[in-house]
Amino acid sequence: MTVSELKDGILNGNRRTLSKAITLVESKKAAHRDEADALLSALMPYTGNSVRVGITGVPGAGKSTLIEALGLYSIENGHKVAVLAIDPSSSRNKGSILGDKTRMEKLSVHDHAYIRPSPTSGFLGGVANATFETMLLCEAAGYDFILIETVGVGQSETMVADISDIFVFLKLIGGGDELQGIKRGIMEMVDLVFINKVSDENRSQAQKTALELKRALHFMPPKLPGWRVPVLLGSALQTEGIETLYRTIQEFIAKKKSANCFFPARAEQAEKRFRYWVQAYFMQKSQENAAFKQAYEAGIFASGNQKVNPSSEARALIKSYFDDADSGAL
Amino acid sequence: MTVSELKDGILNGNRRTLSKAITLVESKKAAHRDEADALLSALMPYTGNSVRVGITGVPGAGKSTLIEALGLYSIENGHKVAVLAIDPSSSRNKGSILGDKTRMEKLSVHDHAYIRPSPTSGFLGGVANATFETMLLCEAAGYDFILIETVGVGQSETMVADISDIFVFLKLIGGGDELQGIKRGIMEMVDLVFINKVSDENRSQAQKTALELKRALHFMPPKLPGWRVPVLLGSALQTEGIETLYRTIQEFIAKKKSANCFFPARAEQAEKRFRYWVQAYFMQKSQENAAFKQAYEAGIFASGNQKVNPSSEARALIKSYFDDADSGAL
Repeated sequence: MTVSELKDGILNGNRRTLSKAITLVESKKAAHRDEADALLSALMPYTGNSVRVGITGVPGAGKSTLIEALGLYSIENGHKVAVLAIDPSSSRNKGSILGDKTRMEKLSVHDHAYIRPSPTSGFLGGVANATFETMLLCEAAGYDFILIETVGVGQSETMVADISDIFVFLKLIGGGDELQGIKRGIMEMVDLVFINKVSDENRSQAQKTALELKRALHFMPPKLPGWRVPVLLGSALQTEGIETLYRTIQEFIAKKKSANCFFPARAEQAEKRFRYWVQAYFMQKSQENAAFKQAYEAGIFASGNQKVNPSSEARALIKSYFDDADSGAL
Repeated sequence: MTVSELKDGILNGNRRTLSKAITLVESKKAAHRDEADALLSALMPYTGNSVRVGITGVPGAGKSTLIEALGLYSIENGHKVAVLAIDPSSSRNKGSILGDKTRMEKLSVHDHAYIRPSPTSGFLGGVANATFETMLLCEAAGYDFILIETVGVGQSETMVADISDIFVFLKLIGGGDELQGIKRGIMEMVDLVFINKVSDENRSQAQKTALELKRALHFMPPKLPGWRVPVLLGSALQTEGIETLYRTIQEFIAKKKSANCFFPARAEQAEKRFRYWVQAYFMQKSQENAAFKQAYEAGIFASGNQKVNPSSEARALIKSYFDDADSGAL
């Protein structure tokens, strides 16, 4: 398919074309990247019109069930829902993604839903991935409620927080030492907490967990002026608390917009992404040069061993890479 | 002075030579950087034999008084103490540094102490500075207890945490809403808290602050296995709690070493620094190219406006910069 055919198919909401296009932007082949960039370029005017919801939580917290329930509720409210799952382990083990799909029984077959795993491994060293570009394609295809899920391995939460408008933390009941186990940095990214699997039997315990979480969140400076991170209780399986979750998300977005923080936050994310990619592509480009690659790895090794001063070594590397005889240049 | 003269002077502990060498590594002139890198290279074998203590706290928390007391106590215990103060505002306003010096009355004139501000502004865009290199020079000159102070503007705490073995947070009495004002990320970097300006009149209030802090710290995953961040009480002005502070720092370092975390942490810091500097020097090098600079700024602008996909734009920029006609290359 040509770029123009892909574009038309996506704008017509054709799901097979969308899938093909996502495979294209995920490709690591340079020839594919030219096409992918041309396609993204052509589609940019049709992107951005969505609410981007990041969702994290430990395995077993019930993310898939929650996404099924929240997704279906959003569809009832007139949305088209896309679910992107970032799973750094997915390239090694496809199990979790397939597992998710069967757990999203109704959502995965719904006309107004589109579910897609988003692999990370290998792409420019595994740090980055094409989730953002996948999201742009989904937006162009008319999906206006994007759920981006992560199991929270490595840097994946930061990646998700950097492309979403709101970051939701799914939590199981349990406080004290268990709260201690919450990954470094998560608490400071969170805009909304949902305590899942609450029932009549454990409600008082859940309320205790909520209190402890609120106390901990109290020490985090607010991300949005005047927004105190809500801690909601519910059960995704029983679709309890899902309406409140949906409304709280919309409330946050509305507040973010009325405080003039919504588009500036997206602009900041995009600028950060551009800076990141310039450096990432430079690193990839330079690693093609065997001498650079070798010197770079030697520099890391010698730095780690405290044999060299890292910044001196880095400067020497860049100077020699650019064949810079003129000592006045750096 | 030649590089070799500077080296000899530093190894002999000559303070004037040390000061000259620090001025050299702080210089932004490329010619000076060649000399600075040669000097650092020659001195690397004599560096590393110190405890590197990062200290942060809001203005008014009593950092200078604490450093005076802790520095003098360390000297009594056989150390040579270097104090480096990172103050992003120092280039604009020299007042705070001069103020600090007069507040460190005894330390600043002590033979076994060396105090030096470490300006940040301007150096490769103001993000980085030469504090790490200054520390290496001090170590080579025999200073084995390094106190790195920051007022905590911008990214300065992260910078300090990235070059220290232990990160100490100096806190005034006051909890609740005031604790909320603690800067994002600080709580997760901290290895040790010292509540300052405690007296008989406010001791119970100080204990309450300590309790609240401990509760908040409880939610942070431990940086060192088995280390629960201690919250100490004291008064730097009355030299109360200074001995405990000193002993707790040594205890942390001993624990870090026995857990085999000390040198690996330094190695990780150095490798991170090398990666950082490779990218920083590349960016500086590329900004010398007027066409690149213009395209880079246009890319940031267009990304922020959501007119372009950041990674496509970044790839195009790097491709054109490297004059890359071959589409197979990136």
